Amino acid sequence: MDLQGHRGARGYLPENTLPAFARAIEIGVDTLELDVGVTADGVVVVHHDRGLNPDIARGPDGKWVSEARPIISFSYKELQSYDVGRLKPGSGTAKRFPQQKALDGTRIPKLSDLFSLVKSKGDRRVRFNIEPKSDVGFPDETLPPEPFARALIAEVRKAGFEKRTTVQAFDWRSLKVVEREAPEMPTVYCTEETGSDPARVHAAGGKIWSPDFERVTAAKLAQAKAWGMWVTVWTVNEPADIRKMLDLGVDGIACDYPDRVIVELKKRGERQ
Amino acid sequence: MDLQGHRGARGYLPENTLPAFARAIEIGVDTLELDVGVTADGVVVVHHDRGLNPDIARGPDGKWVSEARPIISFSYKELQSYDVGRLKPGSGTAKRFPQQKALDGTRIPKLSDLFSLVKSKGDRRVRFNIEPKSDVGFPDETLPPEPFARALIAEVRKAGFEKRTTVQAFDWRSLKVVEREAPEMPTVYCTEETGSDPARVHAAGGKIWSPDFERVTAAKLAQAKAWGMWVTVWTVNEPADIRKMLDLGVDGIACDYPDRVIVELKKRGERQ
Repeated sequence: MDLQGHRGARGYLPENTLPAFARAIEIGVDTLELDVGVTADGVVVVHHDRGLNPDIARGPDGKWVSEARPIISFSYKELQSYDVGRLKPGSGTAKRFPQQKALDGTRIPKLSDLFSLVKSKGDRRVRFNIEPKSDVGFPDETLPPEPFARALIAEVRKAGFEKRTTVQAFDWRSLKVVEREAPEMPTVYCTEETGSDPARVHAAGGKIWSPDFERVTAAKLAQAKAWGMWVTVWTVNEPADIRKMLDLGVDGIACDYPDRVIVELKKRGERQ
Repeated sequence: MDLQGHRGARGYLPENTLPAFARAIEIGVDTLELDVGVTADGVVVVHHDRGLNPDIARGPDGKWVSEARPIISFSYKELQSYDVGRLKPGSGTAKRFPQQKALDGTRIPKLSDLFSLVKSKGDRRVRFNIEPKSDVGFPDETLPPEPFARALIAEVRKAGFEKRTTVQAFDWRSLKVVEREAPEMPTVYCTEETGSDPARVHAAGGKIWSPDFERVTAAKLAQAKAWGMWVTVWTVNEPADIRKMLDLGVDGIACDYPDRVIVELKKRGERQ
């Protein structure tokens, strides 16, 4: 069972930031789950959305941004003037994550900052599951999949973490680039739809399927397993749902509160 | 532009029945869009859902069925005792299709009945876009994709309509069977999700993409076209939406009121 700290440990600390990743490692996750973008000057940064998130990012004026200006439109230096350490009070995200502790002054990290953090901790075990955030529907808001995937691959290889990294995406174009150019990194086919999603992953040659946990059924899981797939589900936060997924026999769980999964695994004797 | 009569002409007559297909042909569609199931005794029948639809089907007792018992659990003979000619008053489907005229006594047709109807009309032009209705999530409610697709292929070939037929599916397993065993019939990759759906179709080797029209954007369409795909959208019923899709340049439209598409095509000089 691959326990993934979702965006680090979003339930507890600002998502996709170094403190959240440090916390996830302390909690004992197997994998850090994260998202990346690329700035105008080619820096791979850790951020979930194609643009700055108005529920999260405050500008140099101290106000939360009003629009989701794309990461690709910022220089790395300009991006560093934004604070992503506190959810906007009253926002939807703030309501969803009431336990998230604010850390004013927290910046969007470079992917290489995260790799340095992991090395500085002497951690030789934790893995990375990284999504390059592109979308066919918004071609002007990110790099195209090919240079995007290449930038990610280069960063991972530079850190020497290619044996500890999987690349995940809803935009399967990126996965095809990785399969071709960095076959040492397994690819993870994300889906969000209802219906016959594992059949689509199989038709596309996917070996790891990452569905919305609410869409997973025993029958779909059985079919995926019959095809030899691994199934890692996102994002499971409630203990009852965590138990349900463990009962189903999924191969991985992404969680905003990863310690909750550990509690359940311990009850089952699957963690010390 | 491929004009598809959705389930025949569902806006006007009971869906997936011979009268609805006859009406669609009279209206002048290019393609009859329909769905099939297979009975316990191996008969390919025309029906949208895996089970009888409680908004549509009345039993021998004259009452609308209370549960969606799977088609695969009926013999063909037993299935013929159900009436699908009138929407249940007050049901969601009845509210969605207030213009649908009831035709009490209408039965679920065999696929071969539809083919005979088309031949009897002397029609040498109309095409068929047929979905074998399976779902990875419900393996016990239909034939598995392989025998299901084979039953469909056999029926189409028996009628000699293989050059006039495409096979569409949300469950892409069926499409892979058709590509392997009946390469003369093009396959149509249906999607319902948001996000990077054409990228998924491309990753799976699809050449025709059939998305929910509400999910199509100019950017997605441009990417699909750049890959050489045809894009046929479902289900576009409002004139403003039909105009929007024609403006976008889709290659096909499935419509419950196909004459509405013809009105718009005539305005553009694209139909006589």
